[in-house]
Order: sequence, then structure tokens, then C-alpha cells
Amino acid sequence: MTQGPPKGLPMTVRAKGLPSRVRIHEVGPRDGLQNESAVVPAEVKAEFIHRLADAGLSTVEATSFVHPKWVPQLADAEELYPRLADLTGVRLPVLVPNERGLDRALALGARDVAVFASATESFAKANLNRTVDESLAMFEPVVARARDAGARVRGYLSMCFGDPWEGPVPPAQVVRVCRALTDLGCDELSLGDTIGVATPGQVAGLLTALGAEGIGPERLAVHFHDTYGQALANTFAALQHGVSTVDASAGGLGGCPFAKSATGNLATEDLVWMLHGLGIETGADLGRLTATSVWMAERLGRPSPSRTVRALSHKE
Amino acid sequence: MTQGPPKGLPMTVRAKGLPSRVRIHEVGPRDGLQNESAVVPAEVKAEFIHRLADAGLSTVEATSFVHPKWVPQLADAEELYPRLADLTGVRLPVLVPNERGLDRALALGARDVAVFASATESFAKANLNRTVDESLAMFEPVVARARDAGARVRGYLSMCFGDPWEGPVPPAQVVRVCRALTDLGCDELSLGDTIGVATPGQVAGLLTALGAEGIGPERLAVHFHDTYGQALANTFAALQHGVSTVDASAGGLGGCPFAKSATGNLATEDLVWMLHGLGIETGADLGRLTATSVWMAERLGRPSPSRTVRALSHKE
Repeated sequence: MTQGPPKGLPMTVRAKGLPSRVRIHEVGPRDGLQNESAVVPAEVKAEFIHRLADAGLSTVEATSFVHPKWVPQLADAEELYPRLADLTGVRLPVLVPNERGLDRALALGARDVAVFASATESFAKANLNRTVDESLAMFEPVVARARDAGARVRGYLSMCFGDPWEGPVPPAQVVRVCRALTDLGCDELSLGDTIGVATPGQVAGLLTALGAEGIGPERLAVHFHDTYGQALANTFAALQHGVSTVDASAGGLGGCPFAKSATGNLATEDLVWMLHGLGIETGADLGRLTATSVWMAERLGRPSPSRTVRALSHKE
Repeated sequence: MTQGPPKGLPMTVRAKGLPSRVRIHEVGPRDGLQNESAVVPAEVKAEFIHRLADAGLSTVEATSFVHPKWVPQLADAEELYPRLADLTGVRLPVLVPNERGLDRALALGARDVAVFASATESFAKANLNRTVDESLAMFEPVVARARDAGARVRGYLSMCFGDPWEGPVPPAQVVRVCRALTDLGCDELSLGDTIGVATPGQVAGLLTALGAEGIGPERLAVHFHDTYGQALANTFAALQHGVSTVDASAGGLGGCPFAKSATGNLATEDLVWMLHGLGIETGADLGRLTATSVWMAERLGRPSPSRTVRALSHKE
């Protein structure tokens, strides 16, 4: 049993200097399910994505075309993607790690693709088995060919604020990789706090440094993790600096390695609560979103870690 | 097993216009334990408070002198308070609902007391069985006599942003009760979002409205609940408006009615992570705080809902 938010709440009070509309880039079906131990059947994934679209989300990252060996949870991309053909008004980005992945995505008609880079050498090595510059060289033909094919290209950048091996990440290092991804032709960059360690001053500092290099908030998204509970405060700081695309995961999907039901990604519902309270349009219906996350949590056999989902799905 | 934060993290980046130091008003032993179903023995409470003081917290709300019938969890105030006599450098506020409670607190040597009012008629009726004005009349002699005895007086104000019966709460209504509590002689007011529904614009709006009435941030504290995940974003907004006293509960103690391990109060550790990241001094040691919350969680037999506590107490 779920319900909408309490009558008249959150109260809407606009705050100065914030965007009037935010595009939520929903990552639950990809970034969320990729980190779940359970492998979810393609028909359940397809229903999940349809429900998210019905809840008013305009961008739902659908899957990844990495090699099935690396991410078995998303090995069914070829089976899943055609099931989404009726969602013509919804952007359905997919991850492509290399030209082979791009070929697979384009063959299915994908119009939104994303590459994933790292701001640190340690994570580039761990995640891509390459140096940062080697991974950028790998992405060069991917981005060029995707654009030639008329696709929009997002560049993910991991570890923009802290790295488990290297500690704090200097903004200049992030700016350099953002500049390189922009020069390759990425339409949008998503700044990832992969281990959730950022705080709002650091977010403001990086956005200011990027702006000084001509990379303004109109081409940036933020992607915060809630490992230390900082994701929404960091999002608010990013909104104050003009960012109007925010990544989030329905129900906070995306298991954390360290605790059952602890969160990885910022929960879409917690984000929507704040945005609607701030009078920012999202197109999302909080009641439907919550019902979708409860439905998905039942399929995964564990409760949603989203605070808003828990509050709104409380049985009296 | 707990550990301190990862080396060099959070990275410290000062943000413009924030206070250089924040006083954390720790409410775990009172507001936290009051809402736990388990009754914790006085010697465990005393050890908890000593550990919190050892972790660098300068203000630890110790207990409540309400009638034991209403809050059996804190019925041992007379047994607990003398066990804290060695904590001479720490402020140990106690709740006093009326003159009888004040008598009990002063007899034990309390130097910091707090009364608790409501911004809404519905909650005043539910919590105090009085109208707002009747409760203010009840507090008048309490505040006057506490001040005559040389005690500092905090006024708690519940339901400042939303009320479960009334929905959104107009700022003018909150301002009126704040003005009345100030006129009674309260040294500090704690603005409570008792059901956790506020968003940052609403926080900024209320602080602006209070400032226009001559009630500035230097005499205000904020008290946010994390029911919808908004507490830390709201705290950041309050800091941007000059507030430098923040209520929080170690480990996020304070059971929520709706879900095991869901949070009520903002977790002190999540707050400290943000403040230290922002370069704001607190005096708190995050490693010791986390160890204390893990210790307390073991005594309560359930994990801490604090994201930071979970992350830092993860067993590899």
C-alpha cells in the first residue's frame, strides 16, 4: 500500500536563483540494477522502465552494452531494448564502453548513448584497465561515430570529488578530463561522486572551476551517491550554481557494498520531494514513483532505502 | 569494528558566507532515547553521555523532567542526572514541561533547561492538551523562575514547517510564537521540523521572516528530521542564513514510527561529515562519535540508521 504525499506537503516555497525546471536523469534500471546481486528478468526490467515513464520521468537510462562477462545483471540488453520501442516520448540512454558496444546499441536504434571515464588514474585502472588518457583515446571513435549516427552523447566522469585509493581529487584534474570529453564531442557531462564523499562547498568549487574553463552548468549533470548522507545537500548546492540536470535512482536502487538497504545512489523520490518543495518542475508524480519503487523492491526482496519511499509506503 | 573517515576525506572546501564554527546541540540521549521502544538503564545512558562528551560534543541534552507516565523511557532523570556531575565543561540541557519539572531540574543543579511549544494548535492540543496560548501561559513562570535561578532557557518550537493535521504551516504563525517565547525570556529558540517535510526554500523563507521581526540567526537553532531525506539540505540552507546552532542525534537515534531503522532525527555523524567538509569547526571527533553510535546501537539491538555510521563501521 502506498499513498501520495500528505495533503499540501511539501509546501512550495521558491528559493532565489534556482532553475525553474530540472530534468531528472533516472539511472535506476541501469546503475541501480547493475549493482544489485539479483539478476532481474528482462520483462521485469521493461515493466520497471514503463512504470517510471508513466510516473512522468522523461529520461530513463535503460541498460548497458558492456561485455556480459563484466556486468551479468545487464547481459540481456538485446532482449530488453526492443521491449521499449513504444516509449517514443522518452529518452532511453544506454552505456557504451567501446566501439563494439556502440555497434550493438546503434543496431537496436539507440539515440542516446553514454561513455564512462574516470577523473583518477586509480579508478581508470580498476574500472577500465587503462590510464585516463588511454580511456579517452578509446572513447574518441565511439563519440565521433555516435554523433555521426545522430545520437546524443553523455560523458560520465567517476570519482570527481574523492577516490578510495587517492583520497581528495583536485578540481584541476577533473577539469582536464571534462575538457577532453567536451573536445571529443560529448553533449553533456555527468559529474559523479562515486563514493559519496563530497560536501556542498566542494561541489560549488568544482562547478566554479569548470565555469572558468568555459564548461557551464547548461551542459553539466550531477550524480551524487548517498554513502555519507550528503547527496541532497550537494544537489541543492549544484542547483544554486545553475545545474538543471540531476541523476537519481528510483527508490535509491543500487546496493551498497557495505550494508543491506544502505543506499548508493540518491533516491529519485527524495530528490523529487525537495525539487517540488522548491517549486521546481520535474514532470514527475511522486505517488506513482513511490508505488513503482515499492513494486520493484518487492521483486528484489528487500525494502527501498529511500526515506521518502519508506515514509509514503508506511502502513498505518 | 569502526574506523575514522577515509584518509583526507571529506576534503575541506570552505563555502562563502557560512559560519566558521557550529555548536552541535546533541539530542540523542533525550530526543533519541525518548522515541525508542526499549527503556535504557540509567548507567547505560550515563555512559552514552560521557562517550558523547569524550567525542568532543559540548552540548548534550541529557533527559527530560516530564511526568514519568508520559515518557517512561526517561523516568530515571533523578537517577541519571547526578551521574553526570563530573562533566563540568559540558552543557547538559534538560526538558522541563512545567513548574513541577523545573523544581525537579533545579533541585539537581541543572543550569540549562528547555520548554517545548508548538507552532500549531493541533499539535499543542495533542502534545500538551492546551491551546498554543495556554501553553505559553504555562511556560511564563517556568521561564521566569529558571532565569531567576541563573539557568539558560531554550524554547523548542514543534511543527514549524508542516503539521500532520493542518498541512503547511504559515511562517507568520511560527513568527508569532517565536516572538512570544522570546518575550517570555527564552535565550534560544529551536525551530523544529517535527515531521521532516521542510525543503530548503521554506527554511530560508522562515529565517528571513524571523529576521524581519528582529529574531536573528544568533538566537536560533534548527532541528530537522530526516523523514523524507531533507534534513541535511535544510541544514545547509540554514547555515547560509547564518544559523550556527544545529540539533542532531548521534547515530540518527530516535526511532521512526513507520519503519525499523528509518530515521527520525538528523544523524550527528552525517552533520559532522558535512560541516567538516565545509571547513566549519565543531570540536567533534567523527571516529569517536561513530564508535559511540555503534556501541549504542548494539545496546538497542538494531543498526544505526545514520549513513555515515554505516559507511564507517563497515567490516571489510
